[in-house]
Amino acid sequence: MIELPVVPLSAEAFAPFGQVIEAGPAAERRIINGGNTERFHDLARLDPGPEGRAIVSIFRGQPRALPFVMSMMEHHPLGSQAFMPLSGRPYLVAVAMPGETVRAEDIRVFLASARQGVNYAAGTWHHPLLALDGVSDFLVIDRAGGGDNCVEQALDEPARITLQT
Amino acid sequence: MIELPVVPLSAEAFAPFGQVIEAGPAAERRIINGGNTERFHDLARLDPGPEGRAIVSIFRGQPRALPFVMSMMEHHPLGSQAFMPLSGRPYLVAVAMPGETVRAEDIRVFLASARQGVNYAAGTWHHPLLALDGVSDFLVIDRAGGGDNCVEQALDEPARITLQT
Repeated sequence: MIELPVVPLSAEAFAPFGQVIEAGPAAERRIINGGNTERFHDLARLDPGPEGRAIVSIFRGQPRALPFVMSMMEHHPLGSQAFMPLSGRPYLVAVAMPGETVRAEDIRVFLASARQGVNYAAGTWHHPLLALDGVSDFLVIDRAGGGDNCVEQALDEPARITLQT
Repeated sequence: MIELPVVPLSAEAFAPFGQVIEAGPAAERRIINGGNTERFHDLARLDPGPEGRAIVSIFRGQPRALPFVMSMMEHHPLGSQAFMPLSGRPYLVAVAMPGETVRAEDIRVFLASARQGVNYAAGTWHHPLLALDGVSDFLVIDRAGGGDNCVEQALDEPARITLQT
Protein backbone atom coordinates (compact mmCIF):
# COMPACT_ATOMS: atom_id res chain seq x y z
CA MET A 1 0.00 0.00 0.00
CA ILE A 2 1.35 3.35 -1.05
CA GLU A 3 0.46 6.47 0.93
CA LEU A 4 -0.20 9.54 -1.18
CA PRO A 5 0.07 13.06 0.25
CA VAL A 6 -2.54 15.66 -0.65
CA VAL A 7 -1.39 19.10 -1.76
CA PRO A 8 -3.47 22.20 -2.53
CA LEU A 9 -4.48 22.57 -6.17
CA SER A 10 -2.71 25.33 -8.08
CA ALA A 11 -2.39 26.14 -11.76
CA GLU A 12 1.38 25.68 -11.62
CA ALA A 13 1.35 22.30 -9.90
CA PHE A 14 -1.46 21.03 -12.13
CA ALA A 15 0.05 22.26 -15.42
CA PRO A 16 1.46 18.85 -16.49
CA PHE A 17 -2.05 17.40 -16.31
CA GLY A 18 -4.25 20.17 -17.71
CA GLN A 19 -5.65 23.46 -16.47
CA VAL A 20 -7.24 24.81 -13.31
CA ILE A 21 -10.48 26.68 -14.06
CA GLU A 22 -10.74 29.58 -11.65
CA ALA A 23 -11.27 33.33 -11.52
CA GLY A 24 -7.71 33.82 -10.39
CA PRO A 25 -5.04 36.48 -10.80
CA ALA A 26 -3.37 34.64 -13.70
CA ALA A 27 -6.47 34.80 -15.91
CA GLU A 28 -6.93 37.27 -18.74
CA ARG A 29 -9.58 39.70 -17.43
CA ARG A 30 -11.94 41.72 -19.56
CA ILE A 31 -14.55 44.21 -18.38
CA ILE A 32 -17.76 43.70 -20.37
CA ASN A 33 -21.48 44.40 -20.25
CA GLY A 34 -21.06 48.13 -19.73
CA GLY A 35 -18.87 47.61 -16.69
CA ASN A 36 -21.24 45.20 -14.93
CA THR A 37 -19.27 42.04 -15.55
CA GLU A 38 -15.69 40.82 -15.32
CA ARG A 39 -14.84 38.09 -17.82
CA PHE A 40 -12.02 35.70 -16.86
CA HIS A 41 -11.34 34.61 -20.40
CA ASP A 42 -10.65 31.18 -21.94
CA LEU A 43 -9.54 29.25 -18.87
CA ALA A 44 -9.14 25.73 -20.26
CA ARG A 45 -8.03 24.07 -23.44
CA LEU A 46 -11.18 22.19 -24.37
CA ASP A 47 -10.18 19.46 -26.79
CA PRO A 48 -12.97 17.41 -28.35
CA GLY A 49 -10.37 15.50 -30.34
CA PRO A 50 -10.66 14.11 -33.84
CA GLU A 51 -14.23 13.82 -35.06
CA GLY A 52 -15.57 14.69 -31.61
CA ARG A 53 -17.71 17.50 -30.27
CA ALA A 54 -17.74 19.15 -26.86
CA ILE A 55 -20.78 18.33 -24.74
CA VAL A 56 -21.92 19.53 -21.33
CA SER A 57 -23.31 17.23 -18.64
CA ILE A 58 -23.82 17.27 -14.87
CA PHE A 59 -22.15 14.61 -12.71
CA ARG A 60 -23.68 13.94 -9.29
CA GLY A 61 -21.14 12.14 -7.11
CA GLN A 62 -21.56 10.41 -3.78
CA PRO A 63 -18.96 11.55 -1.27
CA ARG A 64 -15.94 9.31 -0.69
CA ALA A 65 -15.03 8.18 2.81
CA LEU A 66 -11.50 9.03 3.96
CA PRO A 67 -8.98 7.53 4.10
CA PHE A 68 -9.82 6.43 0.54
CA VAL A 69 -7.95 3.63 -1.20
CA MET A 70 -7.60 3.87 -4.97
CA SER A 71 -7.34 0.60 -6.87
CA MET A 72 -7.73 1.89 -10.44
CA MET A 73 -7.34 4.88 -12.71
CA GLU A 74 -8.86 5.83 -16.06
CA HIS A 75 -8.11 8.12 -18.94
CA HIS A 76 -9.74 9.52 -22.06
CA PRO A 77 -7.22 9.35 -24.89
CA LEU A 78 -9.39 11.16 -27.46
CA GLY A 79 -10.41 14.33 -25.66
CA SER A 80 -10.21 16.57 -22.63
CA GLN A 81 -12.60 16.40 -19.67
CA ALA A 82 -13.39 19.41 -17.48
CA PHE A 83 -15.07 19.44 -14.05
CA MET A 84 -16.46 22.54 -12.34
CA PRO A 85 -17.90 22.13 -8.83
CA LEU A 86 -21.51 23.32 -8.42
CA SER A 87 -22.23 22.36 -4.82
CA GLY A 88 -19.86 24.61 -2.90
CA ARG A 89 -17.71 21.77 -1.58
CA PRO A 90 -14.02 20.95 -1.98
CA TYR A 91 -13.05 17.70 -3.69
CA LEU A 92 -9.99 15.63 -4.52
CA VAL A 93 -8.22 15.27 -7.85
CA ALA A 94 -5.88 12.31 -8.43
CA VAL A 95 -3.86 12.41 -11.65
CA ALA A 96 -0.86 10.93 -13.43
CA MET A 97 0.90 11.77 -16.67
CA PRO A 98 -0.38 10.31 -19.95
CA GLY A 99 1.19 7.07 -21.05
CA GLU A 100 0.41 3.45 -21.80
CA THR A 101 0.23 2.47 -18.16
CA VAL A 102 -0.01 4.14 -14.78
CA ARG A 103 1.71 3.16 -11.55
CA ALA A 104 0.52 4.00 -8.05
CA GLU A 105 3.71 5.88 -7.22
CA ASP A 106 3.19 8.22 -10.17
CA ILE A 107 -0.14 9.53 -8.91
CA ARG A 108 -0.41 13.03 -7.51
CA VAL A 109 -3.35 14.06 -5.37
CA PHE A 110 -4.67 17.62 -5.11
CA LEU A 111 -7.27 19.21 -2.88
CA ALA A 112 -9.44 21.49 -5.03
CA SER A 113 -11.45 24.24 -3.41
CA ALA A 114 -15.14 24.73 -4.11
CA ARG A 115 -14.18 27.53 -6.53
CA GLN A 116 -11.66 25.59 -8.59
CA GLY A 117 -12.44 23.44 -11.58
CA VAL A 118 -10.01 21.21 -13.45
CA ASN A 119 -9.64 20.28 -17.10
CA TYR A 120 -7.82 17.00 -17.72
CA ALA A 121 -5.83 17.09 -20.94
CA ALA A 122 -6.53 14.22 -23.31
CA GLY A 123 -4.74 11.13 -22.03
CA THR A 124 -4.16 12.34 -18.46
CA TRP A 125 -4.77 9.46 -16.07
CA HIS A 126 -7.21 10.34 -13.30
CA HIS A 127 -9.32 8.68 -10.68
CA PRO A 128 -13.10 8.91 -11.15
CA LEU A 129 -14.84 11.71 -9.25
CA LEU A 130 -13.70 12.10 -5.65
CA ALA A 131 -16.41 14.20 -4.00
CA LEU A 132 -16.10 14.99 -0.30
CA ASP A 133 -18.46 15.79 2.57
CA GLY A 134 -21.77 15.34 0.75
CA VAL A 135 -23.46 14.55 -2.54
CA SER A 136 -21.89 16.99 -5.00
CA ASP A 137 -22.77 18.14 -8.51
CA PHE A 138 -20.18 19.10 -11.11
CA LEU A 139 -20.60 20.64 -14.53
CA VAL A 140 -18.62 18.46 -16.93
CA ILE A 141 -17.43 19.39 -20.42
CA ASP A 142 -16.12 16.43 -22.32
CA ARG A 143 -16.28 14.69 -25.67
CA ALA A 144 -18.96 12.90 -27.64
CA GLY A 145 -17.91 10.98 -30.73
CA GLY A 146 -16.74 7.64 -32.05
CA GLY A 147 -13.82 5.59 -30.80
CA ASP A 148 -12.84 4.09 -27.45
CA ASN A 149 -12.44 7.09 -25.20
CA CYS A 150 -12.56 5.49 -21.75
CA VAL A 151 -9.63 3.28 -20.75
CA GLU A 152 -9.47 1.89 -17.24
CA GLN A 153 -6.48 0.29 -15.58
CA ALA A 154 -6.17 -1.52 -12.26
CA LEU A 155 -3.24 -0.39 -10.13
CA ASP A 156 -0.53 -2.97 -9.34
CA GLU A 157 -0.56 -1.71 -5.80
CA PRO A 158 -3.36 0.17 -4.03
CA ALA A 159 -2.79 3.80 -3.07
CA ARG A 160 -4.25 5.39 0.04
CA ILE A 161 -5.25 9.04 0.28
CA THR A 162 -5.26 10.40 3.81
CA LEU A 163 -6.39 13.99 4.00
CA GLN A 164 -4.93 15.89 6.94
CA THR A 165 -7.55 18.37 8.04
CA MET B 1 -42.29 51.82 -20.79
CA ILE B 2 -43.28 48.19 -21.14
CA GLU B 3 -43.72 46.05 -18.03
CA LEU B 4 -42.43 42.50 -18.38
CA PRO B 5 -43.64 39.68 -16.14
CA VAL B 6 -41.17 37.17 -14.74
CA VAL B 7 -41.96 33.47 -15.00
CA PRO B 8 -40.06 30.50 -13.57
CA LEU B 9 -37.50 29.00 -15.92
CA SER B 10 -38.39 25.60 -17.37
CA ALA B 11 -37.03 23.55 -20.25
CA GLU B 12 -40.36 23.69 -22.05
CA ALA B 13 -40.84 27.45 -21.81
CA PHE B 14 -37.21 28.11 -22.74
CA ALA B 15 -37.10 25.70 -25.70
CA PRO B 16 -37.54 28.38 -28.40
CA PHE B 17 -34.41 30.12 -27.12
CA GLY B 18 -32.07 27.25 -26.26
CA GLN B 19 -31.70 24.72 -23.46
CA VAL B 20 -31.91 24.69 -19.67
CA ILE B 21 -28.88 22.97 -18.12
CA GLU B 22 -30.05 21.11 -15.03
CA ALA B 23 -29.99 17.70 -13.39
CA GLY B 24 -33.69 17.30 -13.97
CA PRO B 25 -36.09 14.46 -14.66
CA ALA B 26 -36.02 15.03 -18.43
CA ALA B 27 -32.27 14.40 -18.71
CA GLU B 28 -30.75 11.14 -19.94
CA ARG B 29 -29.26 9.57 -16.80
CA ARG B 30 -26.35 7.15 -16.73
CA ILE B 31 -24.85 5.46 -13.69
CA ILE B 32 -21.05 5.53 -13.97
CA ASN B 33 -17.89 5.25 -11.88
CA GLY B 34 -18.84 1.90 -10.36
CA GLY B 35 -22.14 3.24 -9.10
CA ASN B 36 -20.67 6.31 -7.39
CA THR B 37 -21.83 8.88 -9.92
CA GLU B 38 -24.98 9.78 -11.82
CA ARG B 39 -24.31 11.39 -15.19
CA PHE B 40 -27.03 13.72 -16.56
CA HIS B 41 -25.87 13.47 -20.13
CA ASP B 42 -25.42 16.07 -22.90
CA LEU B 43 -27.67 18.83 -21.59
CA ALA B 44 -27.06 21.60 -24.12
CA ARG B 45 -26.39 21.97 -27.80
CA LEU B 46 -23.02 23.68 -27.72
CA ASP B 47 -22.53 25.30 -31.09
CA PRO B 48 -19.14 26.91 -31.77
CA GLY B 49 -20.32 27.80 -35.25
CA PRO B 50 -18.31 27.89 -38.46
CA GLU B 51 -14.56 28.08 -37.86
CA GLY B 52 -15.11 28.57 -34.15
CA ARG B 53 -14.11 26.62 -31.06
CA ALA B 54 -15.82 26.25 -27.71
CA ILE B 55 -14.08 28.01 -24.84
CA VAL B 56 -14.78 28.17 -21.13
CA SER B 57 -14.63 31.37 -19.07
CA ILE B 58 -15.94 32.67 -15.77
CA PHE B 59 -18.19 35.76 -15.70
CA ARG B 60 -18.39 37.70 -12.45
CA GLY B 61 -21.48 39.90 -12.48
CA GLN B 62 -22.52 42.70 -10.16
CA PRO B 63 -26.10 42.26 -8.96
CA ARG B 64 -28.82 44.29 -10.67
CA ALA B 65 -31.14 46.46 -8.65
CA LEU B 66 -34.86 45.76 -9.07
CA PRO B 67 -37.01 46.96 -10.66
CA PHE B 68 -34.51 46.85 -13.53
CA VAL B 69 -35.08 48.71 -16.79
CA MET B 70 -33.66 47.14 -19.94
CA SER B 71 -32.67 49.52 -22.72
CA MET B 72 -30.76 47.15 -25.00
CA MET B 73 -30.33 43.52 -26.01
CA GLU B 74 -27.50 41.62 -27.68
CA HIS B 75 -27.01 38.42 -29.60
CA HIS B 76 -24.23 36.18 -30.88
CA PRO B 77 -25.11 35.14 -34.43
CA LEU B 78 -22.16 32.77 -34.87
CA GLY B 79 -22.40 30.51 -31.84
CA SER B 80 -24.20 29.44 -28.69
CA GLN B 81 -23.47 30.83 -25.24
CA ALA B 82 -24.08 28.85 -22.05
CA PHE B 83 -24.21 30.15 -18.46
CA MET B 84 -24.07 27.97 -15.35
CA PRO B 85 -24.41 29.68 -11.95
CA LEU B 86 -21.55 29.02 -9.52
CA SER B 87 -22.51 31.23 -6.58
CA GLY B 88 -25.67 29.58 -5.37
CA ARG B 89 -27.96 32.50 -6.28
CA PRO B 90 -30.94 32.80 -8.61
CA TYR B 91 -30.68 35.16 -11.58
CA LEU B 92 -32.81 36.55 -14.39
CA VAL B 93 -32.76 35.57 -18.07
CA ALA B 94 -34.29 37.93 -20.65
CA VAL B 95 -34.56 36.55 -24.18
CA ALA B 96 -36.21 37.06 -27.55
CA MET B 97 -36.30 35.02 -30.71
CA PRO B 98 -33.52 35.34 -33.29
CA GLY B 99 -34.09 37.85 -36.06
CA GLU B 100 -32.73 41.04 -37.55
CA THR B 101 -34.19 43.23 -34.83
CA VAL B 102 -35.71 42.86 -31.39
CA ARG B 103 -38.67 44.72 -29.92
CA ALA B 104 -39.33 45.25 -26.21
CA GLU B 105 -42.69 43.50 -26.40
CA ASP B 106 -41.06 40.33 -27.75
CA ILE B 107 -38.85 39.86 -24.69
CA ARG B 108 -39.59 37.09 -22.23
CA VAL B 109 -38.10 37.11 -18.74
CA PHE B 110 -37.39 33.99 -16.70
CA LEU B 111 -36.28 33.52 -13.11
CA ALA B 112 -33.58 30.84 -13.04
CA SER B 113 -32.81 29.00 -9.83
CA ALA B 114 -29.28 28.64 -8.51
CA ARG B 115 -29.24 25.11 -9.96
CA GLN B 116 -30.31 25.99 -13.50
CA GLY B 117 -28.03 27.03 -16.31
CA VAL B 118 -29.09 28.25 -19.73
CA ASN B 119 -27.64 27.83 -23.20
CA TYR B 120 -28.64 30.53 -25.68
CA ALA B 121 -28.89 29.15 -29.20
CA ALA B 122 -26.90 31.07 -31.80
CA GLY B 123 -28.80 34.25 -32.66
CA THR B 124 -31.09 34.29 -29.62
CA TRP B 125 -31.43 37.84 -28.37
CA HIS B 126 -30.66 38.19 -24.67
CA HIS B 127 -29.88 40.84 -22.11
CA PRO B 128 -26.36 40.81 -20.65
CA LEU B 129 -25.97 39.01 -17.32
CA LEU B 130 -28.70 39.78 -14.78
CA ALA B 131 -27.28 38.62 -11.46
CA LEU B 132 -29.36 39.14 -8.33
CA ASP B 133 -28.72 39.59 -4.61
CA GLY B 134 -24.90 39.67 -4.69
CA VAL B 135 -21.80 39.43 -6.85
CA SER B 136 -22.25 36.17 -8.74
CA ASP B 137 -19.94 33.95 -10.78
CA PHE B 138 -21.07 31.93 -13.78
CA LEU B 139 -19.23 29.36 -15.84
CA VAL B 140 -19.65 30.39 -19.48
CA ILE B 141 -19.15 28.22 -22.54
CA ASP B 142 -19.13 30.21 -25.73
CA ARG B 143 -17.27 30.70 -28.98
CA ALA B 144 -13.83 31.92 -29.94
CA GLY B 145 -13.14 32.55 -33.61
CA GLY B 146 -13.23 35.13 -36.36
CA GLY B 147 -16.21 37.21 -37.42
CA ASP B 148 -18.49 39.69 -35.67
CA ASN B 149 -20.18 37.61 -33.00
CA CYS B 150 -21.57 40.30 -30.69
CA VAL B 151 -24.39 42.45 -32.02
CA GLU B 152 -26.07 44.96 -29.71
CA GLN B 153 -29.32 46.74 -30.33
CA ALA B 154 -30.98 49.55 -28.40
CA LEU B 155 -34.66 48.98 -27.64
CA ASP B 156 -37.17 51.40 -29.16
CA GLU B 157 -38.93 51.46 -25.84
CA PRO B 158 -37.47 50.56 -22.42
CA ALA B 159 -38.76 47.44 -20.69
CA ARG B 160 -39.06 47.16 -16.92
CA ILE B 161 -38.63 43.93 -15.00
CA THR B 162 -40.39 43.88 -11.65
CA LEU B 163 -39.79 40.69 -9.73
CA GLN B 164 -42.60 39.80 -7.35
CA THR B 165 -41.02 38.08 -4.35
